[in-house]
Amino acid sequence: MVTAKTWVLKKYFEGFPKHSDFELKEEEVPDPKDGEVLLEAVYLSVDPYMRPYSKLWMKEGDVMIGFQIGRILKSKNSEFPEGSFVEANIGWRTHSISDGKNLKLMLPDWPSNIPRSLGLGIIGMPGLTAYFGLQEICQPKAGETLLVNAAAGAVGSAVGQIGKIKGCKVVGCAGSDEKVQYLKDIGFDEVFNYKTADSLEESLKKAAPEGYDCFFDNVGGEFCSTAMFQMREFGRIAACGAISLYNDTEPQKGRFFSWHMVWNQLHMKGFLASSWNDRREEGLTQLMNWVKEGTLKYHEHITQGFQNMPDAFMGMLKGENIGKAVVKV
Amino acid sequence: MVTAKTWVLKKYFEGFPKHSDFELKEEEVPDPKDGEVLLEAVYLSVDPYMRPYSKLWMKEGDVMIGFQIGRILKSKNSEFPEGSFVEANIGWRTHSISDGKNLKLMLPDWPSNIPRSLGLGIIGMPGLTAYFGLQEICQPKAGETLLVNAAAGAVGSAVGQIGKIKGCKVVGCAGSDEKVQYLKDIGFDEVFNYKTADSLEESLKKAAPEGYDCFFDNVGGEFCSTAMFQMREFGRIAACGAISLYNDTEPQKGRFFSWHMVWNQLHMKGFLASSWNDRREEGLTQLMNWVKEGTLKYHEHITQGFQNMPDAFMGMLKGENIGKAVVKV
Repeated sequence: MVTAKTWVLKKYFEGFPKHSDFELKEEEVPDPKDGEVLLEAVYLSVDPYMRPYSKLWMKEGDVMIGFQIGRILKSKNSEFPEGSFVEANIGWRTHSISDGKNLKLMLPDWPSNIPRSLGLGIIGMPGLTAYFGLQEICQPKAGETLLVNAAAGAVGSAVGQIGKIKGCKVVGCAGSDEKVQYLKDIGFDEVFNYKTADSLEESLKKAAPEGYDCFFDNVGGEFCSTAMFQMREFGRIAACGAISLYNDTEPQKGRFFSWHMVWNQLHMKGFLASSWNDRREEGLTQLMNWVKEGTLKYHEHITQGFQNMPDAFMGMLKGENIGKAVVKV
Repeated sequence: MVTAKTWVLKKYFEGFPKHSDFELKEEEVPDPKDGEVLLEAVYLSVDPYMRPYSKLWMKEGDVMIGFQIGRILKSKNSEFPEGSFVEANIGWRTHSISDGKNLKLMLPDWPSNIPRSLGLGIIGMPGLTAYFGLQEICQPKAGETLLVNAAAGAVGSAVGQIGKIKGCKVVGCAGSDEKVQYLKDIGFDEVFNYKTADSLEESLKKAAPEGYDCFFDNVGGEFCSTAMFQMREFGRIAACGAISLYNDTEPQKGRFFSWHMVWNQLHMKGFLASSWNDRREEGLTQLMNWVKEGTLKYHEHITQGFQNMPDAFMGMLKGENIGKAVVKV
């Protein structure tokens, strides 16, 4: 019997989340029964999707949703031996009992010089989101121009680098000069700070006077609407997220772009990385190889302490992180 | 030597087109040289696309763009014998010289009981737009629910009927009670008049409480934005036109929908029928067969007299037509 700490959604978020929306609880976790394991969180993820899905997938009083890297402490399930590491879709909890359905073993032979936390980032869900979303929806070709926003985030930074691997000119946009510098350092061709730019439209035009063939959109809203008008004929847009809209209390409005989609024959697809669950191993193996080679660089923004999960989450929503925001227990 | 009448775009449209934007001119047309033909317009088409493309494809003083069904009067091009009928992308002109590049022979063995004017409608570009756009982009499956707006127009009425052939429940929306009755008559399952509906959102919900799998959008703007929020998971949207926006002097704004596209994994594609030019014969043959069988019904809104082309065009933009708007010389 161990005592788990959990973070509960006390009250549905209204607008931007606040401390009083969360509650730290304790619960007793029994020993695993046949077929079950007891796992302990090592790293926990905070991701943008948790904000919009809080309303869709949770009730008030539920443990916050989310992935963690856990270590198996006790096992009565031969698939997950004691001491093994798993990616667990099990929420904000320090200890959990699982029958294995929401667990996935991490890649075997994980190199000792590569942090396990990357299993929540560039060699995990955000990396897979970038890998499949960019390649399957944007279908970038060498010589084409790719736009990615929230480019210094976990997904965006992977998208831009995979775009470079595919031979694209990559334009990235982020919200601080420090992030802009980071994007230059990891090989983006053109970068700008959308917060200090006089005009998003002009900045986009200046970065790519030729227009954009591919657009990986993490932001939605006004950014998306503005960028759509700079898409070239037969452009492809991967709609991955809409972080600019998640905290709205009133729906934001902007210019309609469907006519521009018609006469430029644009193709836009919303997607979730889970669509490619059947190709997960392919994706993770490729991402791991790129990381090992140094082709794919990463940065993590690590918050220490399970008690600080709400702060880590709210900080990530404010864009305080460069690269993946992770909590280390 | 014959004298042709032409309609010229005298002045770029600002907002809704007006009579003074057009000018009727005459010009002498010489005899065809080797490789050329002289053709005479029999039917001319007025279509929504002429409004937005006027700015993109034309200069002031150019002859208005558009398709016509023409008869070859004199031929020095063996591909187009005298007396044959062609679909000609040659503009608003009664007589023309062509080297054949902008001509396409009509299907051979055109039945005498089927009007040649359908070559501008359901067995022509609008029919092909419906045929390929619906099937290739919306990919409708039996049992799914299809939404089409401007449903009593040339394209929309074909889309709905092909949707029925594919086994869908078809919801159509049009702007008069007469059109709504017409849509019922040709087999639409649910229809409503968006002009007299209290709430578009509620009317869409009432017509399909289950939501929409396929949406063929001819209207864009507020209609598109409202309908997007009623798309089901994995829904497909064929963005064919945006007639609600063509006459804007200020860009219209509305609610952003990209987040709804993400979590429902929606797929939206803008397209032009010309994308499937290589499958034109397949499409026309199938459309002709459906028309012959009576599976595909049609209605034409015929304006008499070349001199009335601007009226026919402006009337079509106002939605005065049921089915295809055509001018008979």
